[in-house]
Order: sequence, then structure tokens, then C-alpha cells
Amino acid sequence: MITAKDNDTVKRVTKLSKSAAFRKKCGQFLAEGVRLCKDGVVSGAAPEVFVYTAESKNKYSEEFELIAQASSRICEVSADIFAKMSDTKSPQGFLCVFNMLDKQKNIGRINNRGIYLACERLQDPSNLGTILRTAEALGVDGVILSDDCCDVYSPKVVRGSMGAVFRLMINIPDNFVEYIKELTQSGIITFASTPRDALDVTEVDVTSGVMLIGNEGSGLSTEAINACKYRVMIPMKGRAESLNASAAASILLWEMAGGHAPAGSSRS
Amino acid sequence: MITAKDNDTVKRVTKLSKSAAFRKKCGQFLAEGVRLCKDGVVSGAAPEVFVYTAESKNKYSEEFELIAQASSRICEVSADIFAKMSDTKSPQGFLCVFNMLDKQKNIGRINNRGIYLACERLQDPSNLGTILRTAEALGVDGVILSDDCCDVYSPKVVRGSMGAVFRLMINIPDNFVEYIKELTQSGIITFASTPRDALDVTEVDVTSGVMLIGNEGSGLSTEAINACKYRVMIPMKGRAESLNASAAASILLWEMAGGHAPAGSSRS
Repeated sequence: MITAKDNDTVKRVTKLSKSAAFRKKCGQFLAEGVRLCKDGVVSGAAPEVFVYTAESKNKYSEEFELIAQASSRICEVSADIFAKMSDTKSPQGFLCVFNMLDKQKNIGRINNRGIYLACERLQDPSNLGTILRTAEALGVDGVILSDDCCDVYSPKVVRGSMGAVFRLMINIPDNFVEYIKELTQSGIITFASTPRDALDVTEVDVTSGVMLIGNEGSGLSTEAINACKYRVMIPMKGRAESLNASAAASILLWEMAGGHAPAGSSRS
Repeated sequence: MITAKDNDTVKRVTKLSKSAAFRKKCGQFLAEGVRLCKDGVVSGAAPEVFVYTAESKNKYSEEFELIAQASSRICEVSADIFAKMSDTKSPQGFLCVFNMLDKQKNIGRINNRGIYLACERLQDPSNLGTILRTAEALGVDGVILSDDCCDVYSPKVVRGSMGAVFRLMINIPDNFVEYIKELTQSGIITFASTPRDALDVTEVDVTSGVMLIGNEGSGLSTEAINACKYRVMIPMKGRAESLNASAAASILLWEMAGGHAPAGSSRS
């Protein structure tokens, strides 16, 4: 059991938690908590190392066995050390280092039957986590992120997504605008969500295609808007005259998922 | 100009920022930033004191005049002192102490033409702020909060709501469940959003009435569910099988606002 703070694994985990550059360099990221670690393993990801406390091993013995068997290496640490590695206030005593998932290639075959979300320059990890969670819950077939979005593998995004990062097809193309332009040119239906010169989203069939949403403060870039076939907006009433990025994404994805009431529906 | 840290106004603002109990006792709350302070004044709220820095007074002179004229008292402080009072990393140098708004009485006349949101035990200030912002943007007529929701007057909620707290009718009844029960009994249509034994929200006419949403982790209490006329759920596809509270609220409010596509709509 590790009790000394300067152990290599402890150092590595701490650095993976804090540094996006280090995550990228190692090709690894962290998942913390019983549910997330289990989610990762069940989704087919193999932990390079599984860090746990003796207390949690006893408390969650079933999950422990499942995760430990999938892991290349396991590492018991004291509660004190775990607390130092943890990103949360009340750590559950389970933490895995996962290799980044090579799911990016699978999204190559975007087609006009599926629904896809594309995010440009999203900066807030809570927003991105929520949006990925919503995307999965509503059955989105894939997510495209511009490379200047916040890091999808940061602990906050992984946690906020409730494990959706393990299961969603996520693509981070080298050049976001060019990628969208190519999709549009190849006949994929692309929608820019923007309040300017746009169609009411309820008056357009958005039940297939790619929906672009932009930065929390400034929205989509002009280049990204111009790369799309259509512009759509959410009609609003209040004086706030705005929705935050994750609320807008929820509504747009809901419309894409065909969430609107079928004709003739009634209170029953 | 105040430069000493122990000034009474400084102490008071710091305490109003940190303590919900103190806010309640004083009947006051804070709004920080140029836009929020202006929003409050434009919405008819009068600042008891307007705290600013000389730099911000010059930079935002137009807004300064507007806010200063509506304020009972103005107070210039140094940038150092302002930074200590501020709840944000990059303070804009404007901050107002507002008296709490007596908007609660106006919601008394809930009717079956309007749409209303009721939140039970929402704990996360970011969620509540986002939900209020969304509620306003989608034209909700009033909001009911259980008294064990997080404080609607906390700086994080006020900021996250983008000023919607100044404009929305918000009621915090003494007994949330009893209040909902009375609404239901008086013929108001009440919906409990819950995944158990519920109708698909797209198959029910939710374009008027009161929508209840529950706690982030545990949802609505059984008592609250039983106090409602209908149970509705958002159909989901992914393995996450859940939406976070603000995503769920966005979709439900969108459906209430009649957001769904009219019959016969098409890609145009």
C-alpha cells in the first residue's frame, strides 16, 4: 500500500488531473468515483491503473472485482493520499487512469439519417459535460468538437458527462470550419444555431443532420456559420433574450431527436 | 473614497455575499457587474447602496449615471477594496445592494392560461440560475420555489440568471407540497416530472399549467408527485438514461412554451 505522497503513481494522477497538455502527451485521462470507473470498464475501456482505498474495496466489493479484473495494474493507497489525488470534496475511493479512446475514427461516416452535434470554442467544462450527457440521453449519433473547445478529457467534463465521454463518438478535427464545409459540400445537412438572420428552429426539419453551437459568450464564428447550409434560431420571449449554451443545446438536440409532439396529441 | 478594509459598507457587502441567513435578515442582496446593476435599476429595483471604483465610473459613465440616480447612497472604493468585496475573478467595479423584491404576492393569481415552473429542493446555484434564465427567455409567467431550494438571492444565482431574478415573479410558499396540492384542487393543471409511471411529455398537452421539477440527485419527493394531477417524463435513448436538472427543465419549459414544430412544417 502506498502511503508516501511522492510515489510515482500519485504524482502522475495529480498531473493528469490538472494538466490538459500532460493528458494529451500521455494519451490518458482520469475517471473518479465508483459509477464512472465502472462505466468506463463496462464501455470497453481498460484502466491502465486502478487506484483505490481499502475501505472502498470492502464497501464496493462487486464493482472492485469488475474494475480490478479489467485493469493492467491496481494500486491501494491510504485515505489521506487518495484525498490528495481526488478532484472532489467527498472522494469515493475509486479512481482509474484510462487510455484515451480511439473513437474519433468511427465518426467518419456521418450520414443524413443520423443526428450530430458540433461545438465550436465551448469554454466551460460544466457546459461541455452537461451537453455530452444530454447528447447521449437524447440519442445523438456523434459529436464534433473544435480543437479550441475545453479539454473533453478534463475531470470536470468526464464527471459532468456522467460517463457519456466513454460511449459517444467524438471527433476533434484538425480544422473545424473546413471539416464542416466539407460535410456541407458532400450533401450532409448542416445547421448553424445563431440568432441573426435565422429560421425558427420549429419551422425547419432538424430531425437529421449536424447542429453547430458556439461559444458561451460570442456564439459561432462567422466562418462556421458560413460553412453551414441553414441558420436556425430558438424563438425567445423574455427580456434576457438569451439562453446559456447548455440550455440552447438541450432544446436544439431535443428538436433534432424529434421531441416535438406528434400532430393530434392531447392532454389525456 | 474608502480605502480601509474595515469600513462598515465593505463588511456588510462581504457578509451579504457569503451568508444566506444575513441576506434574509436584512432583506437585501447583491448584484455585481455593469449589466446586472443596470438590469436591476431598469427593472425598477432601487439600490440601497451603489459601490464602484473611480476607473469603472469613467469607463461606464452612462451606466454610472443611471444607477447612481436610482441609488439611495453611492460609495466609491479603491480597486483593491473592490476586489476583496467581489465574487468574481475579474471584477467590473460596479456592485449594488438591492432590497429584496416583493414580487411574491403577484404570483397569487396563477391561472390556467399561463405557464409556471415549480422547483423542489434544487441545490446547485448554477442550476437554479440557468433555469431562471431559461424560464424568462421562454416566457414563463412565474416560478415557485420550495423553501429548501438554494437561496435565489445568492450572488451565483443572481449572476447565472442574467438578471431574470429581477423580472420573474417568484414565490417561495411556506409549505411547497401543500401549496401545489391547493393549486391542483383549485383546478390548476399541475405536472410532476418524474421517470416513474409517467406519460411521455410529447403526448400530453403541457402548454399551460405548472411544471414541477425536483432535486438534482433524487428528483421530486413522493409527496410532491402525489400533489400533482399528471406525471410526465422526457423519453430518453442513451445509456446515461438521465438528464441533469437544468437540461430537463430546458426541455420541459420549451414544450410548455409550445416549442414543438407545427404540423406540416418542413425543411425550407
